[in-house]
Amino acid sequence: ELQEFCTALHPARTAEFMEGLSPTEAWGVLRAADGSTRVEIFTYLPEEMQIEILEAVEPAELSHLIADMAPDDRVDLIKKVDPTVVEKVLKLVPTKERRDILRLRAYPEGTAGALMTSEVACLTEDLTVRQALEEISREGHEFETVYYIYIVDAEMHLRGLVSARQLVTHLNKPQMLLSDLMSRDLVTVGASDDQETVAEKVADYNFLAIPVVDAEQRLVGIITHDDIIDVLQEEASKDAYQAGAVEPLKESYLATPWLQLTRYRVGWLSLLFGGALLTALAMKSYNENVQRFAWIAWFLPLVISTGGNSGSQSATLMIRALTTKEITPADWRRVFFRELVIGFLLGSCLSLIGYLVGCFMAPTVFDALVLPLTIVLVVTCSTIVGSLLPLMFDRLGFDPALMSTPFIAGISDIVGIVLYMNVAGWLLSEGI
Amino acid sequence: ELQEFCTALHPARTAEFMEGLSPTEAWGVLRAADGSTRVEIFTYLPEEMQIEILEAVEPAELSHLIADMAPDDRVDLIKKVDPTVVEKVLKLVPTKERRDILRLRAYPEGTAGALMTSEVACLTEDLTVRQALEEISREGHEFETVYYIYIVDAEMHLRGLVSARQLVTHLNKPQMLLSDLMSRDLVTVGASDDQETVAEKVADYNFLAIPVVDAEQRLVGIITHDDIIDVLQEEASKDAYQAGAVEPLKESYLATPWLQLTRYRVGWLSLLFGGALLTALAMKSYNENVQRFAWIAWFLPLVISTGGNSGSQSATLMIRALTTKEITPADWRRVFFRELVIGFLLGSCLSLIGYLVGCFMAPTVFDALVLPLTIVLVVTCSTIVGSLLPLMFDRLGFDPALMSTPFIAGISDIVGIVLYMNVAGWLLSEGI
Ligand SMILES: [Mg+2]
Ligand SMILES: [Mg+2]
Ligand SMILES: [Mg+2]
Ligand SMILES: [Mg+2]
Ligand SMILES: [Mg+2]
Ligand SMILES: [Mg+2]
Ligand SMILES: [Mg+2]
Ligand SMILES: [Mg+2]
Ligand SMILES: [Mg+2]
Ligand SMILES: [Mg+2]
Ligand SMILES: [Mg+2]
Ligand SMILES: [Mg+2]
Ligand SMILES: [Mg+2]
Repeated sequence: ELQEFCTALHPARTAEFMEGLSPTEAWGVLRAADGSTRVEIFTYLPEEMQIEILEAVEPAELSHLIADMAPDDRVDLIKKVDPTVVEKVLKLVPTKERRDILRLRAYPEGTAGALMTSEVACLTEDLTVRQALEEISREGHEFETVYYIYIVDAEMHLRGLVSARQLVTHLNKPQMLLSDLMSRDLVTVGASDDQETVAEKVADYNFLAIPVVDAEQRLVGIITHDDIIDVLQEEASKDAYQAGAVEPLKESYLATPWLQLTRYRVGWLSLLFGGALLTALAMKSYNENVQRFAWIAWFLPLVISTGGNSGSQSATLMIRALTTKEITPADWRRVFFRELVIGFLLGSCLSLIGYLVGCFMAPTVFDALVLPLTIVLVVTCSTIVGSLLPLMFDRLGFDPALMSTPFIAGISDIVGIVLYMNVAGWLLSEGI
Repeated sequence: ELQEFCTALHPARTAEFMEGLSPTEAWGVLRAADGSTRVEIFTYLPEEMQIEILEAVEPAELSHLIADMAPDDRVDLIKKVDPTVVEKVLKLVPTKERRDILRLRAYPEGTAGALMTSEVACLTEDLTVRQALEEISREGHEFETVYYIYIVDAEMHLRGLVSARQLVTHLNKPQMLLSDLMSRDLVTVGASDDQETVAEKVADYNFLAIPVVDAEQRLVGIITHDDIIDVLQEEASKDAYQAGAVEPLKESYLATPWLQLTRYRVGWLSLLFGGALLTALAMKSYNENVQRFAWIAWFLPLVISTGGNSGSQSATLMIRALTTKEITPADWRRVFFRELVIGFLLGSCLSLIGYLVGCFMAPTVFDALVLPLTIVLVVTCSTIVGSLLPLMFDRLGFDPALMSTPFIAGISDIVGIVLYMNVAGWLLSEGI
């Protein structure tokens, strides 16, 4: 009955149904499944549950599961399991798999090496279409994918690529050599390449998988489409956290202990607070203005927040354009002139509303002119600062995403105070 | 020579080399390539160039290209080309393809229907493995992918799925029926499903493609992994723009005319400005405080920006957790207590720095106590508001991403002013 439950459904669905079970209960269900189904269901279980199972079950029972798992998945998992458990289990895993685990574990997270899997379908170019199909038919279950078949020489140097589609559509030419069928212009990545670069290549070329080569162009693994999707989701999360000045979480919000969450937040928050202390100094130096014309303090939060918002918009546009490689820092001149015009237009629109409200609250309609003048200036300056700072960061080799909304808003606060107080001082002294 | 250039390289690379050419030059190169290579290279050209070519070349020469393009890609393109050109070309396209274009064009953008392609490999369950392979071998070039073969009945009702991998690994059982091989527990999407839901399913199940069915469970198309990657990139962009209060761009930053860019920004900016007008009213009502204790105005920008930053962090964490489905609005109690504790801790840290600086700038060390008290209160309130508002928006059926950094910062400004002025009023009046 249990066995039927395990095989009738898609393994991901079976895994979903198992989510409420304890580690030992879950292992009970998994044991009922046959070898290959067991490993598939296990792979789709939530990671925390996988870790709990590994730490709860006898190591002797686990060695088969570990040996059967996809090389990339088991290394990801092992990195998160209690090292004493890992040591015990690894001793029981067959030598070939153990070596593979140790090799893949050595690549640092965030690189192509840490994403790749090592069970790759590779053949030599002297085989015929028929021989290739027979080989894949026999050994196919071992590979992550049989849809891209890599052609290598005896030293594993990558020579070409034949797709399963090509093999199947050449069924009627069984004697054709793979060397006559293969494409030789391959796109590859290096094992130490950044995962974002890898994801971009796969996205650009619409690949199912991309081969990873070492410095001598030897095939060391492949990265498949599903793991690229995981990278894209991870990078989107990182960018979102960065935009909110939070250190990227490693687990889900609720799974992260609150002390850890505080730590992820306190660094950026203190840095922003430190920078914002400058606003207190700036305000102090304009003390006289604030005392003489009390009403201008009323509009201070409005003026600085508007600067922050328009600067953030510009920074957001730049960071996104840099991330998607639509612009480079070399485009700064074009960006400058566009943002100058756009900032002036946006500032003018807001000025109108600002002046209208100001006329009701300022002593005279002449005094109220401080507001529109300031707003145009602040919005224009903020859009320029907000757009050029990310470009500058990128040019200097920093992540442009560091110049995100909270930072641009902080800078705009100071710019806003200085401009506002000077415009007010100049216009209102004249007026007197 | 041109022909060799077109076939030796991966079509995406050939397309890259062609980027500097004029539409007519590019068409000259494409004409030298044979039919299937031509369409592949064309597909990898930048979209603007594709549009220019369609609008520059004689319609009579284009009908083959359009007929050969992938159904999903050509509809995406046609939606962006001058309608009078489209009309002329469509008349010359074979009836079958024209009908397909009109059918796919009807699905609204953002739905599964607008992502799917209609060239699907489907077979009936009474075929044997050998017959299936022969069929795929003959017709394979027509399909977007031959790796997932959908099993349908005479009315196109979806019955099962056989992978090319299964076919190839069962080469030695050529008489086996597809009905004995196929998996029946299929994951499908509806044609009107949101593209984000589709992308999540493909990501969760690690599919190469997902079938799209109509209300009667008839197969109407498939969505492949590469188009899912495009969706994920598009959604990440949208979320990033939203976080910066910019209307999502439809083209790249530099390709968007500046007047259009201004329009994408002025709406949110005016809304934020309108909200921020409340700060002026709040400030006016505390006029007396600001006049009596001039130094408290110095710290106003610091206090409100700190509230904004801590609130933004909370909102960022919530929006991300809601987007990735890690939390639901039902978790609001847990979120509330966590953010209460975290906000209090963060506020306490910042208070210490704030008090230290305040002691130097305030008249007495007692007066300076206004700062730490306010900061703890403001940070705690802002984290709670920043975390609960996105949950509330989600609960009410709005996009929680609307409660992004600029909005939370605007709300925190008001919260900050009210708390600061009341703490100051209370503590300093007592002091006198
Ligand atoms: Mg890994
Ligand atoms: Mg990276
Ligand atoms: Mg793509
Ligand atoms: Mg994998
Ligand atoms: Mg994976
Ligand atoms: Mg990034
Ligand atoms: Mg489409
Ligand atoms: Mg959507
Ligand atoms: Mg996945
Ligand atoms: Mg497609
Ligand atoms: Mg596509
Ligand atoms: Mg979204
Ligand atoms: Mg602010």
